[in-house]
Amino acid sequence: MSSTSKCLSGDSAAINEFIDKFDIFLLDCDGVLWSGEHLFPGTVETLEMLRSKGKKVVFVTNNSTKSRADYQKKLTSMGIPSNVEEIFASAYSSAIYISRILKLPGPKNKVYVLGESGIETELKSEGIEFIGGTDPAYRRDFTPEDYTNIANGSALDENVGIVLAGLDFHVNYLKLSLGYHYLARGAVFLATNLDSTLPNSHAFFPGAGSISIPLINMTGQQPTALGKPSQAMMDSIEGKFQFDRKKACMVGDRLDTDIRFGIEGKLGGTLAVLTGVSKKEEWEAEGAPVVPAYYVEKLSDLRG
Amino acid sequence: MSSTSKCLSGDSAAINEFIDKFDIFLLDCDGVLWSGEHLFPGTVETLEMLRSKGKKVVFVTNNSTKSRADYQKKLTSMGIPSNVEEIFASAYSSAIYISRILKLPGPKNKVYVLGESGIETELKSEGIEFIGGTDPAYRRDFTPEDYTNIANGSALDENVGIVLAGLDFHVNYLKLSLGYHYLARGAVFLATNLDSTLPNSHAFFPGAGSISIPLINMTGQQPTALGKPSQAMMDSIEGKFQFDRKKACMVGDRLDTDIRFGIEGKLGGTLAVLTGVSKKEEWEAEGAPVVPAYYVEKLSDLRG
Repeated sequence: MSSTSKCLSGDSAAINEFIDKFDIFLLDCDGVLWSGEHLFPGTVETLEMLRSKGKKVVFVTNNSTKSRADYQKKLTSMGIPSNVEEIFASAYSSAIYISRILKLPGPKNKVYVLGESGIETELKSEGIEFIGGTDPAYRRDFTPEDYTNIANGSALDENVGIVLAGLDFHVNYLKLSLGYHYLARGAVFLATNLDSTLPNSHAFFPGAGSISIPLINMTGQQPTALGKPSQAMMDSIEGKFQFDRKKACMVGDRLDTDIRFGIEGKLGGTLAVLTGVSKKEEWEAEGAPVVPAYYVEKLSDLRG
Repeated sequence: MSSTSKCLSGDSAAINEFIDKFDIFLLDCDGVLWSGEHLFPGTVETLEMLRSKGKKVVFVTNNSTKSRADYQKKLTSMGIPSNVEEIFASAYSSAIYISRILKLPGPKNKVYVLGESGIETELKSEGIEFIGGTDPAYRRDFTPEDYTNIANGSALDENVGIVLAGLDFHVNYLKLSLGYHYLARGAVFLATNLDSTLPNSHAFFPGAGSISIPLINMTGQQPTALGKPSQAMMDSIEGKFQFDRKKACMVGDRLDTDIRFGIEGKLGGTLAVLTGVSKKEEWEAEGAPVVPAYYVEKLSDLRG
């Protein structure tokens, strides 16, 4: 288990050797390309350099509130050229998992969604039926009649076979009650991702994991998570892009999601950047559980 | 650890001996006196019998949405005579803990409440300042400005020194975000109780534990819980009623809350009833972690 991480910053020969080893780079975004609304200098040029060398670039994010199209708009607004086929977000990953891997037989294969429009867009693009989500009918106070109607099943859709929990800015007692009852009746439990927090404005806010955790606590069940570091997401990415894992490198700022994702996915390499959450001391510590193969101070150091 | 539970039902001599051992009976309510809206036959007469023998009766409930006065109304509506001084609910227990045990120095001793009016009533009765709770200003959608204003602290009350999480039927993303930020700034973390579920209509709904669990997951902190089986509640009950623990018996239907509460509180006895959640098989199983000293089929069996 003991390994060390090689620093590439300032070492042109090592950088060239590193880049030459890989055909595809999976890039986390926040903390790697930008922080909040601040684009790191040299990000665009670094991506251009990789593409000019024939490398495939994939943007891999746990953000579950955005569809790929929404996320591309975000990349564009940050000044980063991209196309929607280069984006892999946990809402899309969830839709792919439901339609191509889980493949529940109809009619009991409808999805009850705790989440925002990004999930709905991706489910629609895969032709998956769903209820909940942004439907205003679910954005209301709980009433005494809800107890009766949920308990006796009359308020439930009997064709729901899956509960998918992502980040829902409109979570409420009614939505959680319905999610619990679908699970209690045997629905498959999925989560876009389990991040307990969402970084914003240099602070933390409740993440998608805050939506699923009450359901985990009530049912004693763990959902299958479709975001990093879950290998269900890696399998989806591989299924879509058909690459050799030995020629792929995961780039990210978080050891416990990004770097773990790459290591457990048996990719040829992992590259940590020091512009986000994790610090060098964490992987240099004795017995550190997750150690990136390489690191740079900042992504743009790859320009040599 | 090996012990067995003695069945009292139908054994008049054993029942008399049992009752004679105790001065005070702490009674859980739902599952013991009634189920939902259904009062068990003989409940009123059993309580009368205990009182006629000079026994003190205390109603002990984890229900955090009701004040003692609210709860007395519930007892009255069920046809059970009581006075407010016989009622010990987790909202009251929390208020007592804050004002008489925690005693944070002012001005940084305000409470941020996740919960309903029962908590507010009890905090007021102890003269404790609070924000949040049922204030309609907190019952709204989260906005992009909230990220900034919460992160920079301008939306926070700097005198909040305690976060108290109880069952909140109006929980939302804004309330959870504020709770997290007060905790991140060092507030003391309290929970009225940690029950993951709330029984209603012969089914389960999210309990008070569903409100605190996202904050536990985000912060990695465990709250001090003021409901059963937390001994903080037992200490509050003892502080108020001044009884000899050896002459006290806890009566309840749940092994993991009621009976555990009595055993860990080193009471003279625990009595399980079979009209609620736990089944006899649970404590008769080899290596059962919680075994009541006595049990009856139903509370009214105590009338002999």
